[in-house]
Amino acid sequence: MNIREIVRNMKMDAPVLAATAEAERNNALLCAAKDIGDHREEIFAANAEDVAEAQKNGVSAQIIKRLKFDEGKMRAVIDGMHQLTELPDPIGKVSLKRELDQDLILERISCPIGVIGVIFEARPDALVQISSLCLKSGNCAILKGGRETARTNRILYEVIHNSFVRSGMPEGCLKLAETHNEIDELLDCYGDVDLLIPRGSNAFVRYIMEHTKIPVMGHADGVCHIYVDRHYDRELALSVIRDAKTQYPVACNSVEMILVNREAAPEFLPLLWNAMSSCGVSMRFTEEAAALLKEKGIDCTTDPFLTEADFHREYGELILSVCLTEDVRTAAAHINRYGSHHTDCIITSDDEAAAVFMQLVDSAGVYRNVSTRFADGFRYGFGAEVGISTSKLHARGPVGLEGLVTYKYLLSGKGQTVNEYASGTREFHHRDLL
Amino acid sequence: MNIREIVRNMKMDAPVLAATAEAERNNALLCAAKDIGDHREEIFAANAEDVAEAQKNGVSAQIIKRLKFDEGKMRAVIDGMHQLTELPDPIGKVSLKRELDQDLILERISCPIGVIGVIFEARPDALVQISSLCLKSGNCAILKGGRETARTNRILYEVIHNSFVRSGMPEGCLKLAETHNEIDELLDCYGDVDLLIPRGSNAFVRYIMEHTKIPVMGHADGVCHIYVDRHYDRELALSVIRDAKTQYPVACNSVEMILVNREAAPEFLPLLWNAMSSCGVSMRFTEEAAALLKEKGIDCTTDPFLTEADFHREYGELILSVCLTEDVRTAAAHINRYGSHHTDCIITSDDEAAAVFMQLVDSAGVYRNVSTRFADGFRYGFGAEVGISTSKLHARGPVGLEGLVTYKYLLSGKGQTVNEYASGTREFHHRDLL
Repeated sequence: MNIREIVRNMKMDAPVLAATAEAERNNALLCAAKDIGDHREEIFAANAEDVAEAQKNGVSAQIIKRLKFDEGKMRAVIDGMHQLTELPDPIGKVSLKRELDQDLILERISCPIGVIGVIFEARPDALVQISSLCLKSGNCAILKGGRETARTNRILYEVIHNSFVRSGMPEGCLKLAETHNEIDELLDCYGDVDLLIPRGSNAFVRYIMEHTKIPVMGHADGVCHIYVDRHYDRELALSVIRDAKTQYPVACNSVEMILVNREAAPEFLPLLWNAMSSCGVSMRFTEEAAALLKEKGIDCTTDPFLTEADFHREYGELILSVCLTEDVRTAAAHINRYGSHHTDCIITSDDEAAAVFMQLVDSAGVYRNVSTRFADGFRYGFGAEVGISTSKLHARGPVGLEGLVTYKYLLSGKGQTVNEYASGTREFHHRDLL
Repeated sequence: MNIREIVRNMKMDAPVLAATAEAERNNALLCAAKDIGDHREEIFAANAEDVAEAQKNGVSAQIIKRLKFDEGKMRAVIDGMHQLTELPDPIGKVSLKRELDQDLILERISCPIGVIGVIFEARPDALVQISSLCLKSGNCAILKGGRETARTNRILYEVIHNSFVRSGMPEGCLKLAETHNEIDELLDCYGDVDLLIPRGSNAFVRYIMEHTKIPVMGHADGVCHIYVDRHYDRELALSVIRDAKTQYPVACNSVEMILVNREAAPEFLPLLWNAMSSCGVSMRFTEEAAALLKEKGIDCTTDPFLTEADFHREYGELILSVCLTEDVRTAAAHINRYGSHHTDCIITSDDEAAAVFMQLVDSAGVYRNVSTRFADGFRYGFGAEVGISTSKLHARGPVGLEGLVTYKYLLSGKGQTVNEYASGTREFHHRDLL
């Protein structure tokens, strides 16, 4: 079967999965968690082959760490599945119940989205987490993982799929796409796939967004800012910036640009220069900022200077842009114009400035006095996340179970017709019952 | 200024509009409502010119009725604006407040989407309603209305924009695009326009969906079904079907296909034939249904018979498809496969069959024993609607104020770093404060 046929069958299974009871889905998750543990030897063996091949191909040590599926990661994913069963059921929640008229009852009830395509990097633990989140939320999922862990993906998929189906879930609840050209086939499945969640490099996510009519949830860029306001705590500012830049520089929620209030700059720029230099961060300054540092006796030798064309840059490594700005309003305008609407922070001891910033900045996360690195489903307490969305529609920011459901309106009556209301024979009274 | 420059400026004004207080926005709406009344003579004069030109061009009487902006419609839009000011503010609502750790507070707060492009049919009252809904929800709107009412649109726009700006709203809160090629320019404004809401013919909405990267909210098709189950009330079934087909046949929520349970068919098909014939509805039957009618002595002379290729058909006029099906499950499968996920209904006196249908059918509206024509924001009690969405992401079904907002996460702390949590120095406790 090709991908189009596979997802068409999944589409037919989706309402069946959506109709399963919470207890059945939790039971399937527990069953899969146990089976993963029971198949540890085969899983580790497959992973060892993947890792050996990657090493042969000269893959970097840092990436190898991500490919590896060891005892620790197995424990983590099994724990994660247990925790997921304890979270409340995201489907079947009634968010509106209204009597439109006598014996005419409208309800809005949460339900799964349907068939979700998830394209993710080579990380076997991600396969387990995504499968679990989709099943918990009653969604059928078609997965395409990074090819460097093809063997590990295959055995993990087989174990999980087998457990799910044995627990009474429909055959089409989970499918695996394995060859690279299947990504393009998947992008073509508008109408059968309801949502795509791509994870990976910016260029890859952008490619997905530009080559499909299927709605896409995710983010291509993470150009996060920290604005240091006129009134600020020096130690706090440096510590937050250090964390936001260096704690995990490749993450999308790492900071890329520091905006400094012009009044604060003469004091703060030298402090920032020293603090960042001491932890291996290179800095790029606008001409104005560089001149100010020079006055302070620091030759930052930025050549060429940072210009407007660089304001969109996401470094993903230990490099930081620095630019001066007038006040909290110009900072917000800069962020809204050049940022990626991901996560942006103000460092200030002034409550009023903080309120203005949090109101004006149009990003999924707007922070005060904390590291941008907190933008994460686990840290927010969502249990797990399928990704972070910079879209404004549907889910925004870290997306957990709530982002994987939609709703439908149910209306029950006794034969009412619109004509009775249009002609004035009957009238709506719209009484909320919830 | 071209459209790209206009929306870029609107984008900069969007956070300013989002920051206005509820009272200010309500005041702007009341001011516009008064000004529309005060400019009645100019508005009616402009509309008379539009209508005269349309008549000269041979536009049908039914369309002319839509173009006309008379005393009654003016009263209705002014009333609508007053009612809108009484609805609760959709922005600034806190839907999550959580202490992640001591002094680390996460909030999720509703906010406007930003800049919304609305492309709508030639109906002056729609211009007023859409402008009002967008302002109430704090969104900047760029409007493109049907060219047959260009003069009426222009004067209404000028009056409303003037009132809004005089009431303190930013200049970019509302803009009007007037030439047809500006639609294509607008479709190109990905990044500056956050959402497009097209209204109009299926072909037009489909064109919009296929020619932009901007998220689109709306529906191209309205292929609604009514399934008549084994156990059903005859009078109720006929009355609901009559209303759903004839009350306003061009509406997207009119019924196009009647699915009849095979056990019910021998009794119900002749009844349906008589009832529909008596109100001028033509019917198209599958070969199986036609044969059954023939047995009953009714020659429905459907030639050619209805086949699978016709199952997607949206007639929008007094024509109805009829097809037999086995049971509630096959009916749901048919609807999920051939329908448009808009609004679908079961006629049954059997609670269990109703529950199965409402669970399995994957549509924005799933009804029992009522006309599909109830799918409408006003009838649902949403005050007004910007349109009906068949998308599963974000808003689904009739979209009122709630569908015009998104949310952002605000995180306030005292200098916390992710490194403290990653290293185990601190731990999250995730305590909900709401």
